[in-house]
Amino acid sequence: MKGKFISIEGIEGAGKSTQMSVISDYLNRHQIPHIITREPGGTPLAEEIREILLKPRESGMSIDTELLLMFASRAEHLNTKILPALNVGQWVISDRFVDATFAYQGGGRGVAEQRIQALADWTLQGLMPDLTLLFDLPVETGQQRVRQRAAALDRFEQEKVEFFEKIRNCYLQRANQSPDRISVIDASQALGSVETAVRAALDKLRLS
Amino acid sequence: MKGKFISIEGIEGAGKSTQMSVISDYLNRHQIPHIITREPGGTPLAEEIREILLKPRESGMSIDTELLLMFASRAEHLNTKILPALNVGQWVISDRFVDATFAYQGGGRGVAEQRIQALADWTLQGLMPDLTLLFDLPVETGQQRVRQRAAALDRFEQEKVEFFEKIRNCYLQRANQSPDRISVIDASQALGSVETAVRAALDKLRLS
Ligand SMILES: Nc1ncnc2c1ncn2[C@@H]1O[C@H](COP(=O)(O)OP(=O)(O)OP(=O)(O)O)[C@@H](O)[C@H]1O
Ligand SMILES: Nc1ncnc2c1ncn2[C@@H]1O[C@H](COP(=O)(O)OP(=O)(O)OP(=O)(O)O)[C@@H](O)[C@H]1O
Ligand SMILES: [Mg+2]
Ligand SMILES: [Mg+2]
Repeated sequence: MKGKFISIEGIEGAGKSTQMSVISDYLNRHQIPHIITREPGGTPLAEEIREILLKPRESGMSIDTELLLMFASRAEHLNTKILPALNVGQWVISDRFVDATFAYQGGGRGVAEQRIQALADWTLQGLMPDLTLLFDLPVETGQQRVRQRAAALDRFEQEKVEFFEKIRNCYLQRANQSPDRISVIDASQALGSVETAVRAALDKLRLS
Repeated sequence: MKGKFISIEGIEGAGKSTQMSVISDYLNRHQIPHIITREPGGTPLAEEIREILLKPRESGMSIDTELLLMFASRAEHLNTKILPALNVGQWVISDRFVDATFAYQGGGRGVAEQRIQALADWTLQGLMPDLTLLFDLPVETGQQRVRQRAAALDRFEQEKVEFFEKIRNCYLQRANQSPDRISVIDASQALGSVETAVRAALDKLRLS
């Protein structure tokens, strides 16, 4: 019996990490064994790759390199953590997955969708999340939340508002194209309302 | 006017690094501006990826991850070093390039050629070396030379003789399929004879 695979997506400050514990509590209450993970990263080696990706560097990084590193990290995460868990019946909740690459490198940096799709096909070989929760909110609102959270900004967070607008739009487009998989949640609401929407989406998956 | 691109291939201990200076001397004597580089690595970021690849680790690495990291390193090397040099007319000599991936991950680890070709197509977009010097010799001879060179063995050098036999055969097969590009050099000969063969191959390319 295979577990279900859920990915959490959305721009910076949407509240993805905040909702992970809500999801975990929900699954515990329903006695569903599960693991919580994140991308890029999720395994020691994938985290090493994540560091290379996020470290600010003067000369930047060629976009092809960025994409291949993303998928290297994803391949490791998938093959050594996600698939083994699903195969023993655990559910897997990942803070970001492949939609983030389409949104950030495709929508944000302008890489042709078909070039990303080629690497996604190569790496995932057909596997996609059973459910993707897309936390959607205005870029400004997300930015304000991130600024309050403080800490140093990484290489992606230093990008401009315009960049995040493109990412948000790309996410929404993908939700439009895959309405059965991607559930859009209004993340600008108060915490309690977001939590209610998350639980409703989980109910639907659990009872399907 | 574009420079020429030469890659150097062969199993461990074949004498690739040793011949780099012979090639460089040759090009200097003919006043051909050139750069010397190597894979995996060749740029600071690509070298960081090389470290992740070569570092021995208990839990190993999924083969997909290894391949994507190889090509990430190669994309960075290609886009930030090889192509810019070729475009200003410099020749580029690289100690290993894409044939090594077919030989090591394909021949050695058994990855389907078509899976490697997909990443090669994605990353190289048609670029291939103008000339590849394949230093060929019996695996045992290469191993003996490496053992004499001492230093700690990295993750690849720890593999068994059988593994290197497969790699050698794969290299020879590729040379068979691309006789115009790949020049096989008998690397078991004494240094002077190897050098003569190298210079002959370079003469042919220079005068073509
Ligand atoms: N619904 C909400 N209303 C107000 N503030 C919120 C809400 N959800 C999360 N926050 C706060 O916003 C900040 C960002 O939230 P969080 O770190 O969960 O976002 P994120 O989507 O994980 O961002 P990142 O992509 O940077 O990891 C946190 O300080 C969090 O407490
Ligand atoms: N023709 C030769 N005859 C005898 N010894 C040689 C010859 N060529 C190289 N050597 C010696 O063999 C050892 C391995 O050579 P070298 O380091 O150039 O191999 P390599 O192909 O670069 O190996 P690696 O793949 O591990 O980098 C060195 O100690 C070198 O001096
Ligand atoms: Mg987060
Ligand atoms: Mg060498």
